[in-house]
Amino acid sequence: MAPQLDGYFKQVDDLSSHFIDRLAKAVAIPSISSDAARRPDVVRMAEFLAAELKAVGASVELRPLGKQPDNPELDLPPVILARYGSDKNKRTILVYGHYDVQPADKSDGWNTEPFTLTVGDDGKMFGRGSTDDKGPVLGWLNAIEAHQKAGVDFPVNLLMCFEGMEEYGSEGLDELIEKEGKGYFADAEAVCISDNYWLGTEKPCLTYGLRGCNYYSVEISGPGADLHSGVFGGTAQEPMTDLVRVLGSLVDTHGKIQIPGIMEQVAPVTAEEESLYEGIAFTMDNLHESLGSKTTIFEDKKPTLMARWRYPSLSIHGVEGAFSAPGAKTVIPAKVIGKFSIRTVPDMEIEQTNECVYKFVKEVFAKLGSKNTLKVYAQHTGKWWVASPNHWNFRAAGKAVERVWGTKPDFTREGGSIPVTLTFEQATGKNVLLLPMGSSTDGAHSINEKLDKRNYIEGIKLLGAYLHYVAEEVQE
Amino acid sequence: MAPQLDGYFKQVDDLSSHFIDRLAKAVAIPSISSDAARRPDVVRMAEFLAAELKAVGASVELRPLGKQPDNPELDLPPVILARYGSDKNKRTILVYGHYDVQPADKSDGWNTEPFTLTVGDDGKMFGRGSTDDKGPVLGWLNAIEAHQKAGVDFPVNLLMCFEGMEEYGSEGLDELIEKEGKGYFADAEAVCISDNYWLGTEKPCLTYGLRGCNYYSVEISGPGADLHSGVFGGTAQEPMTDLVRVLGSLVDTHGKIQIPGIMEQVAPVTAEEESLYEGIAFTMDNLHESLGSKTTIFEDKKPTLMARWRYPSLSIHGVEGAFSAPGAKTVIPAKVIGKFSIRTVPDMEIEQTNECVYKFVKEVFAKLGSKNTLKVYAQHTGKWWVASPNHWNFRAAGKAVERVWGTKPDFTREGGSIPVTLTFEQATGKNVLLLPMGSSTDGAHSINEKLDKRNYIEGIKLLGAYLHYVAEEVQE
Repeated sequence: MAPQLDGYFKQVDDLSSHFIDRLAKAVAIPSISSDAARRPDVVRMAEFLAAELKAVGASVELRPLGKQPDNPELDLPPVILARYGSDKNKRTILVYGHYDVQPADKSDGWNTEPFTLTVGDDGKMFGRGSTDDKGPVLGWLNAIEAHQKAGVDFPVNLLMCFEGMEEYGSEGLDELIEKEGKGYFADAEAVCISDNYWLGTEKPCLTYGLRGCNYYSVEISGPGADLHSGVFGGTAQEPMTDLVRVLGSLVDTHGKIQIPGIMEQVAPVTAEEESLYEGIAFTMDNLHESLGSKTTIFEDKKPTLMARWRYPSLSIHGVEGAFSAPGAKTVIPAKVIGKFSIRTVPDMEIEQTNECVYKFVKEVFAKLGSKNTLKVYAQHTGKWWVASPNHWNFRAAGKAVERVWGTKPDFTREGGSIPVTLTFEQATGKNVLLLPMGSSTDGAHSINEKLDKRNYIEGIKLLGAYLHYVAEEVQE
Repeated sequence: MAPQLDGYFKQVDDLSSHFIDRLAKAVAIPSISSDAARRPDVVRMAEFLAAELKAVGASVELRPLGKQPDNPELDLPPVILARYGSDKNKRTILVYGHYDVQPADKSDGWNTEPFTLTVGDDGKMFGRGSTDDKGPVLGWLNAIEAHQKAGVDFPVNLLMCFEGMEEYGSEGLDELIEKEGKGYFADAEAVCISDNYWLGTEKPCLTYGLRGCNYYSVEISGPGADLHSGVFGGTAQEPMTDLVRVLGSLVDTHGKIQIPGIMEQVAPVTAEEESLYEGIAFTMDNLHESLGSKTTIFEDKKPTLMARWRYPSLSIHGVEGAFSAPGAKTVIPAKVIGKFSIRTVPDMEIEQTNECVYKFVKEVFAKLGSKNTLKVYAQHTGKWWVASPNHWNFRAAGKAVERVWGTKPDFTREGGSIPVTLTFEQATGKNVLLLPMGSSTDGAHSINEKLDKRNYIEGIKLLGAYLHYVAEEVQE
């Protein structure tokens, strides 16, 4: 039987001003995790959220995570662990979000004060953290409150994990999740994360895959110190000359990775998958708009989506140690470090990929015949993640989307990585669903970040509806 | 008849403590031209020098140069124009030096306070500006004073031009030199600049050539803003991918410039020149020591000196706009600017060289088949300079070196550029001689800059002796 949701939905509509006020209060706290000077604000945000959760009857713990590894004077902000309900006859669902935000300053180019939620006539609610990730985090809280006020029984036991360091590498979180997989999270039957975005602006999606990321450094050194190019140019072998040749060998303009052994690891495209892309609500115009140019590798939607979701890519990010300022400086840098990363996909293995990279880079360098010294190593690695979109967790979410938005969702993957997804999957052994609230134009890490009022209010309905559907979806 | 110099030389020895004290007073004024906050110190240094020059009877003008172009609130320090003597029966010699210095801070790694001249038991006099260029500038002043105290007639009329912006691009100086070429400097018959260094540590040299420098930017842009490599990797053509390929095409590990039309412009080696290199006091050990490694292109002295002095070289300096900090950032930079320069030699023409560079870079980029946008342009250009080492100005200096140091000097060229050299040559139409005081290990722009006491005191003798020999050298 379809869940009875009309009363809940009406209550969400009736409380919409209250929910927007709550988001405004959250946005007003500049909980910038990357700025040590803002750490008290991050903690204040944790305390605000904990108090709001307690007020609706959740049991809440603020878990300390110790000191920040790269700043040992500084306490990490706490992780909020909360539980709402412990009815043995209900399913238990674990949700994750983060209450910290990216840096923001009006002078960066914001049209409004970034820490004042500013709602336009068109329903765009501008403010840092509005969509990433305070809106979705409050979504869960608002869903609880609306159920209570509507007198609708809350359909599940809700476990919540809200962290305050997501925008600074989620320091300390993996260890906590791994430890609590069989502890605080032990009775979770499925996981839902609302911290990503629709592929476009009109059609909701459920996300079941993410690429991994292996990040490499190529370090080439020779002279004992930086040199003057007038004095030494022509007599010394220059590390930068070698580095641009090595970096230039990795990938071509059309995105084709030149390193043997990478593409060979990629899972073949199945017939089922072949048919999947055409239906996705995505156009090349969408891509051109978000890219700000037409400098795409492909002309068509299908190869573009495949390149973003299911094929690896290699990007060269920059060079450390060389001259990088505006103007002219006639330096021969003594040691330069090229940075590049490979986005990984099924069935690529981290170790095998590393070995292919190291072997190729060393071979290219050897061919140069240079007396300089090469080092190549991975700065960090992270595996890709793909869930089954046919799992009951996804089926439930699909029904909730259809109920709230009147359309079936697209099933999407993403090109980026959300490492905590894989950590939750591995620590709990349960299916993880990515259920976005905001849309592709929200500008999560940019100036003028916003969340559309429609996405916020319908999103609160969606999170609640998902909990109803997931409560009764039949496990296969 | 050889000049009578014994009385002068003895007087320099007798005054050596006084001259070192004078250098200590000059070093104590932190006349850092690149630091706006130190501008009053630069002006104070000009006033100190002007007062010392007036005290020995020179007529002195402090010429204002207006505001600093990149900091229009800030007055440029004055150029000191001074004249000592105006006897129509004497030759008039123009000398140049600079009274500003590079930045220095103890915390950079200095073993001593950089603005306290510290004389070690081994005669090394450490201090910022000791060798670059306060020692040589005071050398001219000290030579005047020693002549007076020894009762030896000063052999020439001395025109002096001492600037305070040399370490920050000699702002405003070219215009003044060009204007005064037929004005204040009108009766100069030869020019002498003491602002470079011996090739090694034991043998004096006279320098008759400098390479020029053309500095280029290659700008490649595509997306409207920096992108996230997870979201866009594999779907967008990346400017950095194109740039490393373009930069990788310019020169190889062994210094061979790959741009057609560059080497073709280089003047052929003459038989006379062929025989010149073996006698130069320079060893590969010298090079390895200054390089801090053995990563040289050549194994032998002759090709090394030729590569430094008489062949062009191409160095890649860095990339603006890409990720350049330590750590990992998964950015796809939207616009990157590669910087490289070519050291130029006879008979390369600036315009022809630019055209070769632009054509080649555009061809390499076109072959990539990229949708990104390329711009290539010269940031600045400067011509090479070569004087005749057989000119009477050089012959006189050679005799002075032999008299003071007991050895004939090496005739050297340098790989770097001293643009003012060419400006003086063009503005006055006279021969310019580079007559160094310090040695290759002085560390002009490094920490622990020093001038050996021996080089300072014998250098004062040398400058005075040069003026005697140049006064009577027969003009051919």
